[in-house]
Amino acid sequence: MSRRGTLFVVSAPSGTGKDTVVRELLARHPELGFSVSATTRKPRPGEQEGVDYYFVSPERFSEMIEKNEFLEYAEYTSASYGTPAAPVDEALDSGRDMILVIEMTGARWVQVKRPDAVLIFLVPPSFEELERRLRGRGTETEEQIEARMKKARTEVAQMGGYDYIVINDELSDAVADVEAIVRAERLKANKSLETVKGGLK
Amino acid sequence: MSRRGTLFVVSAPSGTGKDTVVRELLARHPELGFSVSATTRKPRPGEQEGVDYYFVSPERFSEMIEKNEFLEYAEYTSASYGTPAAPVDEALDSGRDMILVIEMTGARWVQVKRPDAVLIFLVPPSFEELERRLRGRGTETEEQIEARMKKARTEVAQMGGYDYIVINDELSDAVADVEAIVRAERLKANKSLETVKGGLK
Repeated sequence: MSRRGTLFVVSAPSGTGKDTVVRELLARHPELGFSVSATTRKPRPGEQEGVDYYFVSPERFSEMIEKNEFLEYAEYTSASYGTPAAPVDEALDSGRDMILVIEMTGARWVQVKRPDAVLIFLVPPSFEELERRLRGRGTETEEQIEARMKKARTEVAQMGGYDYIVINDELSDAVADVEAIVRAERLKANKSLETVKGGLK
Repeated sequence: MSRRGTLFVVSAPSGTGKDTVVRELLARHPELGFSVSATTRKPRPGEQEGVDYYFVSPERFSEMIEKNEFLEYAEYTSASYGTPAAPVDEALDSGRDMILVIEMTGARWVQVKRPDAVLIFLVPPSFEELERRLRGRGTETEEQIEARMKKARTEVAQMGGYDYIVINDELSDAVADVEAIVRAERLKANKSLETVKGGLK
């Protein structure tokens, strides 16, 4: 039997740069699987079913909630988003490590449903820098930036339940940190013991 | 307050190459401290007090045992060896990570005395390869090699209590594995949380 993969959950305050870090990590580690979310919003031009999102109807989304098919989900006024459990579990069962990028609330749910998931929290080097990055995106109003900053402070205050904390100051350092976490987790005795023993003839 | 360092304990069956792996690791990471053992044997030419060993009298060694000054020790007919706790704890208190290379029995003692130590077990890629390496050294009799092989099989059977298992097939891979473990352990939330929170102004 091949060993089961590890589920890595990455969360961060908005603006920290988690998507960039994970994109870079996946580029270097094609063996890592990326968990695709389901959403009720319509596909944008160029977005592919099963690659960018699983596009589902609001009815199907509700059904998935009822049937407990999500590892976590969130419903907003504009659209709903969720992580279907089946593709993640199938990949893990086949021995593939998976990366899931989600909000802190969703991460807590994953932790409850899959206690062996490894939770990584990415933080900015400072709140000043986070504000600078948020303003640099130029996509948010002053009010939205203030709301994001307030949320960031709350999230950082609550990051105690995570397994690892990575500071995203220099991108390459943060990517190397997450790489080291993935590599080290694969060496954990509770994961590798039987495989190593079995291979040691 | 600076954060406390982490104590990494490396064990391996004789012939696996743990000294080479750790030497390479220390060469790349001068910030890591290496724990120096105390011994009752006489210094060999070139060996320096406090660098290679702390050279102590049998009386002093017995006194250190009585005063509980060792993290672990082992007494052989030829000489005794032990890890004095004070230099290790002082280094850890100053925030320095420390590496301790010791036998499995000693590692168990360290685990009991310092439950937050991180135990790394290094294994050969196969028992055939271990035997080949032992013979390659050309320093042991056939009887000694057989005894070492028997001990290696027992040790591998008992490695379950370790935190990480690293296979020393290619040296550079094994060193990178231990590097990843050290790096990841520094990112553990239970170690870094307060420092990160304190730094996030």
